[in-house]
Amino acid sequence: MMKIEFQLTTHKQSEIIDITESVAKEISKSTIKDGMCVVFIPHTTCCVCVNENADKSVKDDILNTLNALIPRDGNYTHAEGNSDAHLKSSLIGSSRILIIEDGELFLGTWQGIYFCEFDGPRKRKVVLKLTGS
Amino acid sequence: MMKIEFQLTTHKQSEIIDITESVAKEISKSTIKDGMCVVFIPHTTCCVCVNENADKSVKDDILNTLNALIPRDGNYTHAEGNSDAHLKSSLIGSSRILIIEDGELFLGTWQGIYFCEFDGPRKRKVVLKLTGS
Amino acid sequence: MMKIEFQLTTHKQSEIIDITESVAKEISKSTIKDGMCVVFIPHTTCCVCVNENADKSVKDDILNTLNALIPRDGNYTHAEGNSDAHLKSSLIGSSRILIIEDGELFLGTWQGIYFCEFDGPRKRKVVLKLTGS
Repeated sequence: MMKIEFQLTTHKQSEIIDITESVAKEISKSTIKDGMCVVFIPHTTCCVCVNENADKSVKDDILNTLNALIPRDGNYTHAEGNSDAHLKSSLIGSSRILIIEDGELFLGTWQGIYFCEFDGPRKRKVVLKLTGS
Repeated sequence: MMKIEFQLTTHKQSEIIDITESVAKEISKSTIKDGMCVVFIPHTTCCVCVNENADKSVKDDILNTLNALIPRDGNYTHAEGNSDAHLKSSLIGSSRILIIEDGELFLGTWQGIYFCEFDGPRKRKVVLKLTGS
Repeated sequence: MMKIEFQLTTHKQSEIIDITESVAKEISKSTIKDGMCVVFIPHTTCCVCVNENADKSVKDDILNTLNALIPRDGNYTHAEGNSDAHLKSSLIGSSRILIIEDGELFLGTWQGIYFCEFDGPRKRKVVLKLTGS
């Protein structure tokens, strides 16, 4: 098994960044041909999901709809002003498990991996754990 | 590790299909007695979850409540008219990881695996990745 | 691979319980130094997520906001009166995959593992599946 970390910098409070290429590159560089890859976000106000990265409007729709459901300035008890970010991250989830096939990241035709920032801008880490042979 | 694909056809725009038996059968047919199984959906407008499959009304409640929160005809920028499907899939998630024990799929008494279609009817694929010994 | 179960008792209808220590202890006791751990909830009205456990107000905000979006007394067809619990569990998810590094559970500084009860009080089980070497 291998653990790999990489960093990214977000530039807005709420932002979706396509990390598909970064994850795919780390998998290609590894010796694992047949396996699984955990994408794990070690933060509590951002998260990871898999969705369409062909049309950037999908990103805007995800952010806007989440903001409508869970507004930044809702009625929360957590004093740091970022409760919405904790909630969105809890719902979408801090990890995804992906398939490695023929030494490459396996995804559907239109799928990409989205890093979702809900309390930026910040420096963030993404942790990968690869298993297989 | 083994990668297995199977297909299914959805018949409605919004529909939940119980795929527990299909997944369980593939696990039983494999040589893996002790392991894990990733259920991965290689599409961006459908997804997978685990919930009660004893009473079919649970399926209706999931679909109806999701539609109330994220309506089909909401105010979206993505031009294909299926933004709600991208959103629902991002929230619920495109994969689940399950446990293989004694050569069988391990689930709680009332649990089943649900394929959730939000932009059908279509032909869809489900990808399994099994690991273990 | 190892499968481990532990029990917990919830005391309210809707409640978040921090199970980080219980999971971490089982991982530390195992012989696995480098691996992955599936946290699986074998029930359909509770679930697991990873979020901030430093400030308990985050728990309250998660429960309150979920209740506002998916109310207990909404207009559901499932006759048992706990449709909201099925929905919340489906959205958040019945499993999470975590990383084992240097024989310990790997989490970000502020992260903890939350067992989310939506239809208590009850006796519940948490199932762990550990893989690695």
